[in-house]
Amino acid sequence: MTGNGFGNIFRFTTFGESHGKAIGCVIEGVPAQIPLGISDIQSALDRRKPGQSRFTTQRNESDQVQILSGVFNGMTTGTPIGLLIENQDQHSQDYSEIAEKFRPGHADLPYFLKYGNRDYRGGGRASARETALRVAAGALAKKVLAHFIKTPFDITAGLIQVGKEKISSWDSAEINRNALFCPDASALPRFENVIEQARKNKNSIGAVIEIRASGFPAGLGEPVYDKLDADLAKALMSINAVKGVEIGDGFAVAEMTGTQNNDELRADPNALNGISFSSNHAGGILGGLSTGQPIIARIAVKPTPSVATSLHTVTIQKENTDIQTTGRHDPCVGIRAVPVAEAMTACVLADHLLRLRAQYNL
Amino acid sequence: MTGNGFGNIFRFTTFGESHGKAIGCVIEGVPAQIPLGISDIQSALDRRKPGQSRFTTQRNESDQVQILSGVFNGMTTGTPIGLLIENQDQHSQDYSEIAEKFRPGHADLPYFLKYGNRDYRGGGRASARETALRVAAGALAKKVLAHFIKTPFDITAGLIQVGKEKISSWDSAEINRNALFCPDASALPRFENVIEQARKNKNSIGAVIEIRASGFPAGLGEPVYDKLDADLAKALMSINAVKGVEIGDGFAVAEMTGTQNNDELRADPNALNGISFSSNHAGGILGGLSTGQPIIARIAVKPTPSVATSLHTVTIQKENTDIQTTGRHDPCVGIRAVPVAEAMTACVLADHLLRLRAQYNL
Amino acid sequence: MTGNGFGNIFRFTTFGESHGKAIGCVIEGVPAQIPLGISDIQSALDRRKPGQSRFTTQRNESDQVQILSGVFNGMTTGTPIGLLIENQDQHSQDYSEIAEKFRPGHADLPYFLKYGNRDYRGGGRASARETALRVAAGALAKKVLAHFIKTPFDITAGLIQVGKEKISSWDSAEINRNALFCPDASALPRFENVIEQARKNKNSIGAVIEIRASGFPAGLGEPVYDKLDADLAKALMSINAVKGVEIGDGFAVAEMTGTQNNDELRADPNALNGISFSSNHAGGILGGLSTGQPIIARIAVKPTPSVATSLHTVTIQKENTDIQTTGRHDPCVGIRAVPVAEAMTACVLADHLLRLRAQYNL
Amino acid sequence: MTGNGFGNIFRFTTFGESHGKAIGCVIEGVPAQIPLGISDIQSALDRRKPGQSRFTTQRNESDQVQILSGVFNGMTTGTPIGLLIENQDQHSQDYSEIAEKFRPGHADLPYFLKYGNRDYRGGGRASARETALRVAAGALAKKVLAHFIKTPFDITAGLIQVGKEKISSWDSAEINRNALFCPDASALPRFENVIEQARKNKNSIGAVIEIRASGFPAGLGEPVYDKLDADLAKALMSINAVKGVEIGDGFAVAEMTGTQNNDELRADPNALNGISFSSNHAGGILGGLSTGQPIIARIAVKPTPSVATSLHTVTIQKENTDIQTTGRHDPCVGIRAVPVAEAMTACVLADHLLRLRAQYNL
Repeated sequence: MTGNGFGNIFRFTTFGESHGKAIGCVIEGVPAQIPLGISDIQSALDRRKPGQSRFTTQRNESDQVQILSGVFNGMTTGTPIGLLIENQDQHSQDYSEIAEKFRPGHADLPYFLKYGNRDYRGGGRASARETALRVAAGALAKKVLAHFIKTPFDITAGLIQVGKEKISSWDSAEINRNALFCPDASALPRFENVIEQARKNKNSIGAVIEIRASGFPAGLGEPVYDKLDADLAKALMSINAVKGVEIGDGFAVAEMTGTQNNDELRADPNALNGISFSSNHAGGILGGLSTGQPIIARIAVKPTPSVATSLHTVTIQKENTDIQTTGRHDPCVGIRAVPVAEAMTACVLADHLLRLRAQYNL
Repeated sequence: MTGNGFGNIFRFTTFGESHGKAIGCVIEGVPAQIPLGISDIQSALDRRKPGQSRFTTQRNESDQVQILSGVFNGMTTGTPIGLLIENQDQHSQDYSEIAEKFRPGHADLPYFLKYGNRDYRGGGRASARETALRVAAGALAKKVLAHFIKTPFDITAGLIQVGKEKISSWDSAEINRNALFCPDASALPRFENVIEQARKNKNSIGAVIEIRASGFPAGLGEPVYDKLDADLAKALMSINAVKGVEIGDGFAVAEMTGTQNNDELRADPNALNGISFSSNHAGGILGGLSTGQPIIARIAVKPTPSVATSLHTVTIQKENTDIQTTGRHDPCVGIRAVPVAEAMTACVLADHLLRLRAQYNL
Repeated sequence: MTGNGFGNIFRFTTFGESHGKAIGCVIEGVPAQIPLGISDIQSALDRRKPGQSRFTTQRNESDQVQILSGVFNGMTTGTPIGLLIENQDQHSQDYSEIAEKFRPGHADLPYFLKYGNRDYRGGGRASARETALRVAAGALAKKVLAHFIKTPFDITAGLIQVGKEKISSWDSAEINRNALFCPDASALPRFENVIEQARKNKNSIGAVIEIRASGFPAGLGEPVYDKLDADLAKALMSINAVKGVEIGDGFAVAEMTGTQNNDELRADPNALNGISFSSNHAGGILGGLSTGQPIIARIAVKPTPSVATSLHTVTIQKENTDIQTTGRHDPCVGIRAVPVAEAMTACVLADHLLRLRAQYNL
Repeated sequence: MTGNGFGNIFRFTTFGESHGKAIGCVIEGVPAQIPLGISDIQSALDRRKPGQSRFTTQRNESDQVQILSGVFNGMTTGTPIGLLIENQDQHSQDYSEIAEKFRPGHADLPYFLKYGNRDYRGGGRASARETALRVAAGALAKKVLAHFIKTPFDITAGLIQVGKEKISSWDSAEINRNALFCPDASALPRFENVIEQARKNKNSIGAVIEIRASGFPAGLGEPVYDKLDADLAKALMSINAVKGVEIGDGFAVAEMTGTQNNDELRADPNALNGISFSSNHAGGILGGLSTGQPIIARIAVKPTPSVATSLHTVTIQKENTDIQTTGRHDPCVGIRAVPVAEAMTACVLADHLLRLRAQYNL
């Protein structure tokens, strides 16, 4: 209950700070008899790894994951899976400035006010380094989903907006072809340009990520407080720097009428459950339950608070000072948040699939 | 874990369908020795009650709450508070059409696919009727907050957008003067006009609600999965018809740079904790912890799916048909969601206040 | 988390005090499509009802249960089942003495020290009245078990010891033939005699209850903290007046050797899973998992603390005084605890069955 | 919810198998600003370590614990504490026999039936090796208790019975003077003799452990399902080989009358809360709440199932065979369970202390 775990039956609990000895997690709820190798997790981590383009931080996070338990002879055993990632970059930096000054836009101040004794190195627990574990858990979640869903399914996230630039089309296959996880090749140069401008201006820029999950059965979600969209909202809002979550048409519904927003139904023998929808304004979720349509969510990611521009702040002694970040930082944290958003979505779906199975036959 | 409760230490668990015998809830975590009368809860329920203006449903939900336990001689006893609201409107309608047809935009279809044996009367469990209990729980949450926070605090929600019309200023005092919970008197006629148009067009319209919570200490929230904003996102997204949640600048951050979005800090002996902020883009939450600034959230509420216009749908036998809603329905459910959003915010804050107290002195 | 609920997927949350308006509960996790009538619950309550023999309290607890939600047209709907039992006996007694004096052996003192403002009428929340709801939940738990387990199973509790008198044989059919739930007809007169002596001596007497659950699959339980025996121990120890819990041979294992205590295995095509056991010292649980053998537990129930003999105590002003209980009280609370123990066992098994189903095919 | 964690606010989640790479845990709920060094945990682990006497297994479990997170500059930071113990003894044994045969009295059979793909090396997840993590968590729990309770308190467990031999007096100081954790020096030779006989007879022997916790405030426990005794029962029953749990007089209450079992009260200005008790039959808990008296619990620990005597069993192919354990095994696992029982008690008390603080001032 102290906030370091996520999920109910499929559940992971993480520990570790940015520049401590290691980060790690315990993943529960993975059934026995699932083939699992280190590469299943490592490949997911490699997608998120920094230093993959000039737009992401050049930190040396090798992110070599070790499986410490829960797997025997290449198969899961039904016991908890312990994962460990040692921190390589542990002593490489001078944190004296961060130790004394609160970085605007970061968690520094409220952590200090709450805990007093914060680990300021690299953001400590509040660092996005922790999201590596979410990606690892997401890899396991996908294994669990594949164990039970025998028809094709897909969970894909993409970067759909950077600054004012937006995609004009979505091609899932394109996402893994570029370092920005952008689903629209034609938008890529515009996205790169916006980010490059931010970097040159010693600044950073916000972004929007869309997550699409298709091939999932109807009925996922537990009304009325653990609705699928409610749990997705929590999962996604818990990601560092996220300030907004939308399902389906999201905030656009405010300007819509009922006849515009409703997805009409038609009998369709070829469709899942024999019913097709005229549209998917709902984003695949009604009343907190999946409908069988693709589940669509979007998140807004704020610009990296660390900028090379000087900002007003105060010291821990509450004296006025200024701060600018000279180190290596992503000008657009939205990029690296893409695999994290995808992973958190997978974790929510895996948990709800197990929850559904408890009471109903899948 | 089956989704009918919300919160950890301050926790409420609800039951009841729209047109069953009664709805009710069990509220846990309210400390002993808090004065509590029926009017403390009833007055909150009355704000949410339908039939208060021509823009909300004319259903006769008298919503007379009974306190069944947890209070003795006008004081809470520390034991769970059982609340009951009998359904008056139980047998008044002909539901044969809903029983046979899935209403587009409603939970009908996924409930049927999951449970098979749904209670279709008035939406059953998926009906907004259940939100009366959220409002009741919110009234208790405010009591808990006032029990521990001895300085002024406030949680207020208001309707800030209907269709394309938006408020231009926020006056908390104005909110309770009009039936639309609109904080801007000058926007009120425009809002009324949009809603009236929707009604005349046999249609409905979406809305945006903003929630402002001020006077709360820094440090509320449990990183990294039970962040204050993550729990708010879940709480708010769990409300019927909500399709988006924003904290602070929300989706606007996508177009912002780091220097625009960061809230700079200055020493200020008159401010909470001796530090003032240049702005509140963060919406009072950084790293998942409250900063002491006002907590700002917004939600998008979709247009009422029930419209008097004919729509395509299918029967439970999966045959094509049409449906139009002739009964009494709010053309803008966003209005009645205002007290619900306020209540859910209060519940999240009360729970996190108790969670904070467990480990740290308040 | 505030202690008024039990279970994870099959979960019930209770409210209500002995002499408040009503007691009630919310039962979650019952799948849809299970036939359920009021008599399914009422008949279970009637077994526990006081006033059934001269050995149980003559209080008029009519215990008429109402189903407020979760059932439609005689079938469960998958939504939470709200149950209500109005208190008939609400104003019938003079509690001024209890209000001022702490009853030895009762919860009065620690409740007062913790909450200050306790509801002293009839024991308030700490009264055994609350156990009616456990029995109601147990009735639902058995429905859930029968929904998924298609082979015969049985959960039966019996009174096996009163004072120094013990049963010499176990006949499940006998249990419902006598008011003491005694499985041994030959022990019945001895049990009755001990209880009658206690009553005549203005005293009360302790007891031991055994619970036997057979017909359950292997694998129930979640190592290593939610072991089946651990959850049974919690469930049973949470029952009023219980001071000890044993599984299988229980405390007798202390004097046993490994060769005495081990249950040896043999191939047996007629046995569950093709394996038979030479004995059942383990009580059907090894490593926290059910083995397929009958699950055996025992609990020790202390003598009713309310006795008609004068005892030293103190007032709430901490002045010395004496107290004796003149009202109607069971000389042996162990009798009425029998259906409660059976119900709690059913709840644990139902919850673990659903938990098993989440990950594994049953 | 998958059973690898214990506690609510003070909570630990463990992973790891007997002969995997490592075992470890994540400990949540430890407040910031508590001085913590590796020796605080290591010294607790060393008490439990095997190979300390000829009566415990000679396995080389060096149990060198590493703190991976949650501590910075010698102080806790309020973030989760990750602990790791690498397994030294990983490849030292031939497990071919265990791999093929189910050991009677062990978890082998139900694990196989549930998971199919069990890690049979040294018992895998079901091995008592996991209890090292409970002891580590217990060390942290004591730190949390000392952080909030400023008056002296003590939690001590001792071995009070082996076979038929029992202690005749309790001297807490004596417990750490002998390898058997026996609180009675005069009983020690008798205990040693019983164990030595068991060993010589290629057998093993059961035991009883008593846990005493004094100096704790009244009011710990959350009625009615998270009663202090209910949570203790779960915690203690979850320990490997435990088959019974008693609070206070335990099973002896069955033969007692109400006047014998009740603890009478007297005004006493020198006593906690100004009230003294004539006795402590209740074991410091009434109505599920601590009374301020010493909390007394006892557990029965079965004889080690691994014996050097040949026993009937079956292979995983369900063929009859025999098995005898030739390796290193404790003839009395009750000895090593002593620090584990003490640790689990500390964890329960720490969790309930934090739960109490959430709502009430300590």
